[in-house]
Amino acid sequence: MDLAHSLSAAGRSRSLSERFRALRSASVSLVSPLSDADATIQSMPDASPAKWHLAHTTWFFETFLLRDHLNGYGLFDERWPYLFNSYYEAEGERHARAARGMLSRPSLDEVLDYRAHVDAAMEGLLERDELADLIALGIAHEEQHQELLLTDIKHALWRNPLGPAYGVLPEGGVDRGLGDQGWIEHPGGIARIGHKGPAFAFDNEGPSHRVLLEPFALSRRLVTNREWDAFIADGGYRTAGLWLSDGWAWVQENAIAAPLYWREGEAFTLGGWRDRDPDAPVTHISHYEADAFATWAGLRLPTEFEWEVAARDSDPSAGVQWDGGAVNPSGTDQLFGDCWQWTRSAYLPYPRFRPAEGAVGEYNGKFMSGQCVLKGASCATPRGHSRATYRNFFQPYQRWQFTGLRLARDL
Amino acid sequence: MDLAHSLSAAGRSRSLSERFRALRSASVSLVSPLSDADATIQSMPDASPAKWHLAHTTWFFETFLLRDHLNGYGLFDERWPYLFNSYYEAEGERHARAARGMLSRPSLDEVLDYRAHVDAAMEGLLERDELADLIALGIAHEEQHQELLLTDIKHALWRNPLGPAYGVLPEGGVDRGLGDQGWIEHPGGIARIGHKGPAFAFDNEGPSHRVLLEPFALSRRLVTNREWDAFIADGGYRTAGLWLSDGWAWVQENAIAAPLYWREGEAFTLGGWRDRDPDAPVTHISHYEADAFATWAGLRLPTEFEWEVAARDSDPSAGVQWDGGAVNPSGTDQLFGDCWQWTRSAYLPYPRFRPAEGAVGEYNGKFMSGQCVLKGASCATPRGHSRATYRNFFQPYQRWQFTGLRLARDL
Amino acid sequence: MDLAHSLSAAGRSRSLSERFRALRSASVSLVSPLSDADATIQSMPDASPAKWHLAHTTWFFETFLLRDHLNGYGLFDERWPYLFNSYYEAEGERHARAARGMLSRPSLDEVLDYRAHVDAAMEGLLERDELADLIALGIAHEEQHQELLLTDIKHALWRNPLGPAYGVLPEGGVDRGLGDQGWIEHPGGIARIGHKGPAFAFDNEGPSHRVLLEPFALSRRLVTNREWDAFIADGGYRTAGLWLSDGWAWVQENAIAAPLYWREGEAFTLGGWRDRDPDAPVTHISHYEADAFATWAGLRLPTEFEWEVAARDSDPSAGVQWDGGAVNPSGTDQLFGDCWQWTRSAYLPYPRFRPAEGAVGEYNGKFMSGQCVLKGASCATPRGHSRATYRNFFQPYQRWQFTGLRLARDL
Amino acid sequence: MDLAHSLSAAGRSRSLSERFRALRSASVSLVSPLSDADATIQSMPDASPAKWHLAHTTWFFETFLLRDHLNGYGLFDERWPYLFNSYYEAEGERHARAARGMLSRPSLDEVLDYRAHVDAAMEGLLERDELADLIALGIAHEEQHQELLLTDIKHALWRNPLGPAYGVLPEGGVDRGLGDQGWIEHPGGIARIGHKGPAFAFDNEGPSHRVLLEPFALSRRLVTNREWDAFIADGGYRTAGLWLSDGWAWVQENAIAAPLYWREGEAFTLGGWRDRDPDAPVTHISHYEADAFATWAGLRLPTEFEWEVAARDSDPSAGVQWDGGAVNPSGTDQLFGDCWQWTRSAYLPYPRFRPAEGAVGEYNGKFMSGQCVLKGASCATPRGHSRATYRNFFQPYQRWQFTGLRLARDL
Repeated sequence: MDLAHSLSAAGRSRSLSERFRALRSASVSLVSPLSDADATIQSMPDASPAKWHLAHTTWFFETFLLRDHLNGYGLFDERWPYLFNSYYEAEGERHARAARGMLSRPSLDEVLDYRAHVDAAMEGLLERDELADLIALGIAHEEQHQELLLTDIKHALWRNPLGPAYGVLPEGGVDRGLGDQGWIEHPGGIARIGHKGPAFAFDNEGPSHRVLLEPFALSRRLVTNREWDAFIADGGYRTAGLWLSDGWAWVQENAIAAPLYWREGEAFTLGGWRDRDPDAPVTHISHYEADAFATWAGLRLPTEFEWEVAARDSDPSAGVQWDGGAVNPSGTDQLFGDCWQWTRSAYLPYPRFRPAEGAVGEYNGKFMSGQCVLKGASCATPRGHSRATYRNFFQPYQRWQFTGLRLARDL
Repeated sequence: MDLAHSLSAAGRSRSLSERFRALRSASVSLVSPLSDADATIQSMPDASPAKWHLAHTTWFFETFLLRDHLNGYGLFDERWPYLFNSYYEAEGERHARAARGMLSRPSLDEVLDYRAHVDAAMEGLLERDELADLIALGIAHEEQHQELLLTDIKHALWRNPLGPAYGVLPEGGVDRGLGDQGWIEHPGGIARIGHKGPAFAFDNEGPSHRVLLEPFALSRRLVTNREWDAFIADGGYRTAGLWLSDGWAWVQENAIAAPLYWREGEAFTLGGWRDRDPDAPVTHISHYEADAFATWAGLRLPTEFEWEVAARDSDPSAGVQWDGGAVNPSGTDQLFGDCWQWTRSAYLPYPRFRPAEGAVGEYNGKFMSGQCVLKGASCATPRGHSRATYRNFFQPYQRWQFTGLRLARDL
Repeated sequence: MDLAHSLSAAGRSRSLSERFRALRSASVSLVSPLSDADATIQSMPDASPAKWHLAHTTWFFETFLLRDHLNGYGLFDERWPYLFNSYYEAEGERHARAARGMLSRPSLDEVLDYRAHVDAAMEGLLERDELADLIALGIAHEEQHQELLLTDIKHALWRNPLGPAYGVLPEGGVDRGLGDQGWIEHPGGIARIGHKGPAFAFDNEGPSHRVLLEPFALSRRLVTNREWDAFIADGGYRTAGLWLSDGWAWVQENAIAAPLYWREGEAFTLGGWRDRDPDAPVTHISHYEADAFATWAGLRLPTEFEWEVAARDSDPSAGVQWDGGAVNPSGTDQLFGDCWQWTRSAYLPYPRFRPAEGAVGEYNGKFMSGQCVLKGASCATPRGHSRATYRNFFQPYQRWQFTGLRLARDL
Repeated sequence: MDLAHSLSAAGRSRSLSERFRALRSASVSLVSPLSDADATIQSMPDASPAKWHLAHTTWFFETFLLRDHLNGYGLFDERWPYLFNSYYEAEGERHARAARGMLSRPSLDEVLDYRAHVDAAMEGLLERDELADLIALGIAHEEQHQELLLTDIKHALWRNPLGPAYGVLPEGGVDRGLGDQGWIEHPGGIARIGHKGPAFAFDNEGPSHRVLLEPFALSRRLVTNREWDAFIADGGYRTAGLWLSDGWAWVQENAIAAPLYWREGEAFTLGGWRDRDPDAPVTHISHYEADAFATWAGLRLPTEFEWEVAARDSDPSAGVQWDGGAVNPSGTDQLFGDCWQWTRSAYLPYPRFRPAEGAVGEYNGKFMSGQCVLKGASCATPRGHSRATYRNFFQPYQRWQFTGLRLARDL
């Protein structure tokens, strides 16, 4: 299937209603290669079944739009909110996250019926201006789940000894012949960080505020598989001094010796087991691994602020980066569309951040200690979902997302 | 669906080849109410997916009959033995038991194709006398998995908050108006125990040997839901002195306060949530619970030998018990077809027991410490699979099988 | 220190009061090589601090004798029963077992004061005939704890990388030049099993009852370290087919490859690290290991009944075995005083067993599923504590006791 | 004992050699109330035995000073480095952290002999200028362990149901009649952060660098027990929306409902169980609790930079704060000597930070993801160990240190 097409469809649309319809259609097309059984299984507590993603994003529209704003709307099934609420305490009790893989019912077809029912009802709300922000939030929310659906099904298929293929994405980006690393220097100073203005952004991207940066340089491109092979060959996974102390404990407890999805000469992809391209960016590494690699290289990870400043001129909303191939005039390449890039920044609310009221605020204001910020966007990120202010975040040990790294150094 | 019909089909057939065909057909009919997704999920490590049961029993025939005895037979798929071997060390590496629920592929339809392929090839072996014992073993093995398929899917559907129905069985037996308990007395003495003779039996049912019994009495019928309610009402689950010490630890750690599948006034059945019949036998209890109940009643569980001696005159091969309703002339009722009955006997090999050579011996000679013997047969046991010498065995905390109890006392 | 002398002191005394005083004095002498810190630490939840054993056995006399039967007796410290009750539910709340190693207070000296206080008060009860059974029970109880004190401190000292020595015991017995195995045959038949008569025995040794034995043979002596080395060299720990299925899981999860306390050519003893004597009995093995060894040897473990019948003529109360050296006229050697001997019997109450009423009954009537019976007595067992009817019991994975094996076979 | 005197002794000394001797003597005086057994036990893996602290700090001097710099120095005991190395990979294998409580040997007296031996040998190095920095590091290292010794023994004694007393500290500070909260405002701007200059500091306090602060206000005083009672009474521990999402999971899994060491109206102190002073600062709270309290109050925790800027004028090296009672002229009170104060800052290296080479660099350059910075100093912090640039760090769930909070808000 043409995943890239699906992921970019919504991004190209103009009006909110067009975007809504394109988004909803894209999600359905993402499950077209999957059987009911494929869409049901949950391969680990961090992942969710494909079917669940389809239903949960629909529950979001049903709950916060239809239930609250469409007169006379009746729930598709009164028992389903319990199943498809993710973590909104304000919305009541819910099915345990780790048990999502027990839901062989409702079937995938029933979930698709649910989507059709909600989509039809949503037509009555799409033109109401006062709901535009909430609808835009629902779209952004579903875009997040589109990416998760892809990373989660990749993990599930990988656990099957048969190694089934799903479809083809240019995973982690491809070799663009970028050659030597090269450094893009920045003089430092006071920079404005975070989202401002009328365009959509998640609450955690603001408030816009100033930070003071020391002079720094960012690598023009991402770290490659070839470079990662050198790290392994040099004993990177066996050298305690390269690792954060919790990272070293993680390596030892889990006998980590390579990125996730690697085996001899190959990597598991959504298209099945494939030879690794040595010049493609390394992906599926944890923050621990990224940090150890940078230490091994005598360098460091960038802060989220350094990354954002460097990327500002290359915002994918200008279309420069997304389609691949074209070298960014500012020099920094592979910002969006290859893989998420670990930073050294802990995920914390920005100064003066206040969560919005109510259940939707719960979604936007959910913070957790111990997570690290990632910047950029991966091959699985819907196009409309990439921007310089975007803050992704995961625990430092997690690596089933398309995660890689870009190096930085002080000047 | 008419489960009882499916379960009894194989039992009524005469010749081995008729029995084989009836058995194989019955297994397929057991999954007719299930979707591919239903047949894929694994609700706990002790349970297996329905699809896996269908494929594993087929792998047994493919491996030990077709591969070893049919010239020119080609494996249906060379990668599948890795998936569907259960625990036979002699047959090489295998998929981890706890990860059986990850197998969304092969699909249920592909597994049914596998069955058809193997069944067709088996036709060439069914009349070969020297293979009759091995085929009979394969039939008995698949009968075991028919029961497991039912108990496993019950557990899986129970974990779904929607509580879907599968089909109807007279679970744990029904109220037959048996009334007061009544005691069937036995004078004790030297009894012969275990299987002997040409009819099929598992290796663990022999060798036949003698045991010395003291005078004892067995209850005429099983303990009922009504009696269990009295145990609960009397604080049975809160009284340490009634429990084995590991049983008491189990109660506390798991906050056990009722049989599995109970909720207020109802029990989960293969037909969904139903009102509990107070006069039906209690089921889905652990050995710990059975033992505590007996202590509470001032009585005890029978030994496996006492049970076998009492049941001998009521062997279901004579058809007396299975169809229900008819009172056993010897007086002991509800021996077979209601629920498995915990005994106080630990599961140990009989004197002079020797495991057979090879992988099949591995199946028959597999012992584990800490398990308890259960006697009888449940509502989910295929009819041809019930006999007085049968020894079922589970860990004392397990209770997802149809397990109940019959009381005993010394004379 | 002369441990053997301490352990045998109580056994040689005549009157109950003499035995009480000798026992109490022997316990104190067992801690003479220990510092307050040594006597405080708990090396695993299965073990208890030496200080705790001293106090708990004293609590038994204070509670069941002094508190209940001595007018005007005042508790030594009102807070201590909470600390030193082991598991008697009837005696109220108690300190968590796994937290016994947190009790740096009271000090060892304070515990010795407690013992002196209770011993002095006990003088007033020692001659009261109606209390003789209870006092004898208290003595037997403390004898059990004397052995546990030794096995627990051995484990604690072993966990110290300095490998400190405690004192010298002939651990697991010594090489007596017993030479070839040799088999003592028994014709089978109906045997009477269990304790009967006025002498002291624990409740679990009765009621006396009959069992039917098939003809069998028992090895004249125990399995040696040399034989165990051959088992290892032959890949015993790597051959799945030799093991009970839970035993095999235990081997793999814990990477078991030798008896506990073994390292290259040496074994840890109460006297520190020592060269292993190839002709001494192997000790510190689990039931799993004993069973696998027997299977490897083409033999089996005896039942508890076979062992008891064979030992009856060699009862240590006749003094034949205990002092070592003298060959038993009946032929069976190393019955008592070398190591506990695993049987294949599950630990279950004997027919017609009824626990006594009250808290003391809790002690005697405590059963747990999954445990295996051991017969005999070890080098650490007080002499008066050995008899043919004695039933020791542990979980099949436990091996910090002095445990070994004797082989059996069918005739 | 006069703990405050012990803790302040080293701080008042002038020369390095005087400070060394005072420090070493102070550590010994800290164990004067402890028995050998008290000094041996380990109450949880995060804590270490008192004896271990005494020996480990001595190992530091023996290894990095005497072994490397004193000609002909012989190790006190060649086996002890294995026991008392904490985590220095460069120094080889070491005893498992969680098994430190198994070391009943060496005894406390032997450890004190070890200290005397090392102290005597150190006399030969104290005047060597080129070693002054390393000696100062060793002193600072031992000061850290003095505080840990106190918090660890507090935890150990608390686990004893007898609740033994150790000595008296003004724990968490005392009520100084500070009254209403009051806010000290700061206009923001570019501030210089981190240590610079010749005085001793840990590597993680530098390099000195600039940060940009927005206008903010800090509370003049710490949050009190009375205020915490109000948080509890208002359902703070039961309101999901107040908590970080991992904090809420922690509350539920551990059934947290109050600070550590609280019970009805009382708190456990080094002096035993005491009535809580409602006006004293709350202590023994986790970062999760501190953050939830701040959210409940409609405020937030300060960043580490805000705290440092506010404290700069109140540096305890000027003696203003430490002795208590005197109100800081700048208005911010209770900065040092009451309790460590959680900030919202993740513990990350400062810009341009580089770990020093070798094993000592391992000590100074040890970072771990997920930890939070605490500022200030507690009642158990040695006086010479308090300064505005100091960065303490713990996991967000840890609370056995003397930890409290100060509120902040945006202007």
